[in-house]
Amino acid sequence: MGDRGKRAPLRLFALEDFPLVQPGDDLVALIAAALERQGDTLEARDVIVVAQKIVSKSEGRAVRLADVVPGERARELAAATGKDPRIVELVLRESTDIIRQRKNVLIARHRNGYVYANAGIDQSNVGPDGQAWALLLPEDSDASAARLRAGLAARYGVELAVIVNDSAGRPWRLGVTGIALGTAGMLALQSRIGDPDLFGRPLEITEIAVADELAAAASHLMGQADEATPVVVIRGARYRASESDSRALIRPIEQDLFR
Amino acid sequence: MGDRGKRAPLRLFALEDFPLVQPGDDLVALIAAALERQGDTLEARDVIVVAQKIVSKSEGRAVRLADVVPGERARELAAATGKDPRIVELVLRESTDIIRQRKNVLIARHRNGYVYANAGIDQSNVGPDGQAWALLLPEDSDASAARLRAGLAARYGVELAVIVNDSAGRPWRLGVTGIALGTAGMLALQSRIGDPDLFGRPLEITEIAVADELAAAASHLMGQADEATPVVVIRGARYRASESDSRALIRPIEQDLFR
Repeated sequence: MGDRGKRAPLRLFALEDFPLVQPGDDLVALIAAALERQGDTLEARDVIVVAQKIVSKSEGRAVRLADVVPGERARELAAATGKDPRIVELVLRESTDIIRQRKNVLIARHRNGYVYANAGIDQSNVGPDGQAWALLLPEDSDASAARLRAGLAARYGVELAVIVNDSAGRPWRLGVTGIALGTAGMLALQSRIGDPDLFGRPLEITEIAVADELAAAASHLMGQADEATPVVVIRGARYRASESDSRALIRPIEQDLFR
Repeated sequence: MGDRGKRAPLRLFALEDFPLVQPGDDLVALIAAALERQGDTLEARDVIVVAQKIVSKSEGRAVRLADVVPGERARELAAATGKDPRIVELVLRESTDIIRQRKNVLIARHRNGYVYANAGIDQSNVGPDGQAWALLLPEDSDASAARLRAGLAARYGVELAVIVNDSAGRPWRLGVTGIALGTAGMLALQSRIGDPDLFGRPLEITEIAVADELAAAASHLMGQADEATPVVVIRGARYRASESDSRALIRPIEQDLFR
């Protein structure tokens, strides 16, 4: 920023016909193969945005609901919300805090800090076996992003950033948007503290959720139902390279005005 | 969607060296001049994203704080929050509901429905006269978007969509991201109700905040302090043309779990 010269455009493209991901799949290899099929490659400072669903699947985070035994608290909460007690059991296991419960609504703080409907557990798009499955978030999305970044950077010989994104709802707005669950290689939250505005007055807006804005942009190309495009490459993004992760995006509990 | 063929990339570019906007300025003319300077034009189905700040300025929504006389409720709320009583007075005038108040925090429901810190009132980047000014949101951002769309569509002879965007904070995440305050020519909230997932199971995620994702993507190119790029053109966006506006993005009060 501060650069008033001609800025390059931002360009986003999806990897087409991405295969269905199975537990244990090597996402770096799948991404490289998809890039090669469409005659693309990765360039320095590209941001590769990977949908949480395929990260979770490759890491074996799908759970067959028939194998889940709900405990007492899960059964109570399921009765109160009208939800499947097995899903509620998984929500409780994955979360540290139930933020809101209502009929058909269960908003929880995931143990990694995100506040999410059902702690981010997804019941759609899991298995073709006719069985009911749920897909949990990755154990550690930042670690997942870091592994992908290391693998892609090694294969392509350039510095890259990776975002693991997901679609999340918002309390006062309808519809989901993409957010960054995990990042590697970039400053996810960019501070502008001390930057003056055009007339020298200190800015009131001090931090930009760069990774969330890029996650939302990529989400626009991914669609929601169609898993054929779970990877999007962003070229021309304005980000600061960094070894930090996405935890900076999570508001500390003590600043939560809406518990 | 449903289109499994090769998808075009999404491309975003900013209008460079945009002039400082004054009350009464014709934004359509300024946008056209900026496009011409850089040898660009608008194409059918482009989405033109315009920062709320320049819309508000062109509509004369800047208020000199010296002219604001705080009422009793504003003075009380200012004392409780440590905020400038004149800003609090403007927040009260612009909002229907105070959602949260704490030291240095005042979250309000704007009369157009958005829940926002300070009801969206901005104290930065307003006037070079050394005076303290505040900038209110447009009276009706959807109407502003509709006027811009009509003017640009007439000038370029193509169907377009317009988004008026702004940066907003989130309750559980740090940093601001772009959101759509007003839209014209597009379905802001795209329903996927009834769309099956890849295995035929109805999706749980049923609505996508398309306009917010595009607003966030454009915001990434705008920067925050630097008003030189308050207009971004998005080419290749997947949206449904529509005569509806952005009110669909606002969660009805009766669904608000966090009042």
